Amino acid sequence: MSKFWSPLVNDLVPYVPGEQPKMANLVKLNTNENPFGPSPKVIDAIQAELNDSLRLYPDPEGESLRQTIAGYHNVRPEQVFLGNGSDEVLAHIFYALFQHGEPVLFPDITYSFYPVYCGLYNIEGKPVPLTDTFEINPADYKQPNGGVIFPNPNAPTGRYLGLEHVEKILQANPDRVVVVDEAYIDFGGESAIALVDKYPNLLVSQTLSKARSLAGLRVGFAVGHPDLIEALNRVKNSFNSYPLDRLALAGAKAAYEDEAWFQKCCDSVIFERERVTNALEDLSFEVLPSKANFIFARHNTQAGEALAKSLREQGIIVRHFNKPRISDFLRITIGTPEQNDALISGLKSL
Amino acid sequence: MSKFWSPLVNDLVPYVPGEQPKMANLVKLNTNENPFGPSPKVIDAIQAELNDSLRLYPDPEGESLRQTIAGYHNVRPEQVFLGNGSDEVLAHIFYALFQHGEPVLFPDITYSFYPVYCGLYNIEGKPVPLTDTFEINPADYKQPNGGVIFPNPNAPTGRYLGLEHVEKILQANPDRVVVVDEAYIDFGGESAIALVDKYPNLLVSQTLSKARSLAGLRVGFAVGHPDLIEALNRVKNSFNSYPLDRLALAGAKAAYEDEAWFQKCCDSVIFERERVTNALEDLSFEVLPSKANFIFARHNTQAGEALAKSLREQGIIVRHFNKPRISDFLRITIGTPEQNDALISGLKSL
Repeated sequence: MSKFWSPLVNDLVPYVPGEQPKMANLVKLNTNENPFGPSPKVIDAIQAELNDSLRLYPDPEGESLRQTIAGYHNVRPEQVFLGNGSDEVLAHIFYALFQHGEPVLFPDITYSFYPVYCGLYNIEGKPVPLTDTFEINPADYKQPNGGVIFPNPNAPTGRYLGLEHVEKILQANPDRVVVVDEAYIDFGGESAIALVDKYPNLLVSQTLSKARSLAGLRVGFAVGHPDLIEALNRVKNSFNSYPLDRLALAGAKAAYEDEAWFQKCCDSVIFERERVTNALEDLSFEVLPSKANFIFARHNTQAGEALAKSLREQGIIVRHFNKPRISDFLRITIGTPEQNDALISGLKSL
Repeated sequence: MSKFWSPLVNDLVPYVPGEQPKMANLVKLNTNENPFGPSPKVIDAIQAELNDSLRLYPDPEGESLRQTIAGYHNVRPEQVFLGNGSDEVLAHIFYALFQHGEPVLFPDITYSFYPVYCGLYNIEGKPVPLTDTFEINPADYKQPNGGVIFPNPNAPTGRYLGLEHVEKILQANPDRVVVVDEAYIDFGGESAIALVDKYPNLLVSQTLSKARSLAGLRVGFAVGHPDLIEALNRVKNSFNSYPLDRLALAGAKAAYEDEAWFQKCCDSVIFERERVTNALEDLSFEVLPSKANFIFARHNTQAGEALAKSLREQGIIVRHFNKPRISDFLRITIGTPEQNDALISGLKSL
């Protein structure tokens, strides 16, 4: 600590992202990146912007990209908010919509950035336990709160909550914003964006880092009622007018203009997910049902930490969380068929 | 307003960036962009990253870029903090270092984002009047405060404060952080980065948007004592792990590896600034002495707003601030020789 710090800095416990090792030839299955690269149309679109125009500021409103996303999801552009990755979008959501003097609810096992945002903005967070089978029980979210947020599918469990259950949470909280964080929705789930015109308290966040293969470009967005979007815009425009650079805006737009590429990548990941799941079950793993681009699995005798370490010695990196209830699980990103084969062989050899 | 908003959102007064008109053939002298494009080496470096690696997250620490900037400025990498444009860097500075229950001091005529950050984070801001000649008087900053921030050269005045005067402000505030916002330092000023090892309370911010011709790429940074950088990292890592995308990291690094290009662009801007200044003085303008890539000028009879409007009708866009003390001034970005000729002709015709 230092006398120069704002006092709150002393108590911050930052988020720890998955490791980005600089070694070559790793089987990197630890940060849920897409095993396939982005559409060639994305590369072309960025290429077309890669010129002297970089001297000029980008469009602060990202109008063209918002129009594209709105068209894709059948909403209006004023229902779309853009950010520098969905993490930035979520940070603004916590600040703009969750400060009501009551605790923000999220699952006890979930994206570990949520309690970090609470710490950053001095918001009380209240973890709501998942069921014994690691499912969200909508009835548990009927209690006083300052807002509700959960990923769907949940991370790191991969479990998906059907929209009929999402609606129960929305109906139980008509005076609070319910955020559905759909980072992984395209790998088999159904987006709640279809419900935004029905529920003014619904805000859906998505990212281009996963299904759109653009983790390296930093683009995320939220969709909801224009009133909710206006709150986010007010905060964003009091923080950083131009969060998305010219190349990111162009590349993100193009990613929505190659539906065939997107579908092919998602289908491959889903196919491989089922194959890896079956293989791990044959190796005495319990694998939670996943609708994400990762699986969450534990061996029936071996500890998660030891397994992660052994895999690492073989150059295979997965993610292990040393936390209550899940310390025996591994979160394993679905890779290319070759990477998945390497994972399965690696586990067989242990 | 809406029942869903955090109450503070109601009172936010966001920053209004300079217009980014979508019409072609404008003489756009309103947002202090560089009239010259980035180095061809920047384009090449981005090109080399424009591939399947976009599916992977960027380095959250931006280590390679921090090393480059540290080397360039003769400091250590742990003295460098990166952000998504210097606006994001400044936002984190206000949050991490300026919350001490006392007002943050900045000039009354200055970058209009400072009071916006104060509003965002509920920090009291105290404008300190510039002198009658629009200069910063260091003695005015010897008063109780929660931090001090000013641009050098100041914006929108363009006036530069010599480092001996900057040191007086640092010496008057040993227990508070003094931020020198050097967005425009490369157009004739001397950077205070040379002083960071002498003053643990000094933090210098810079941007690649101006002298490095990369407004479209969104990269800024701060340099200071590692304790100050740690506070910024704690906040950043509680907000967004990956604020700089892979292409921005690569392009920014390359911008520091073409010193000749950088010098040539700066020299041209400085040469043109003197030429435009002389021409405007011949047209009965008072032009404040500028060390920036813009000038701040008022006509001895005609009102600023009317002049801005007349220029606009000729397709020439400059910036006018309808604010006390400066409502008769125009802030005019230095453009290419051709753009500057158009400006001068345009003014002559009025």
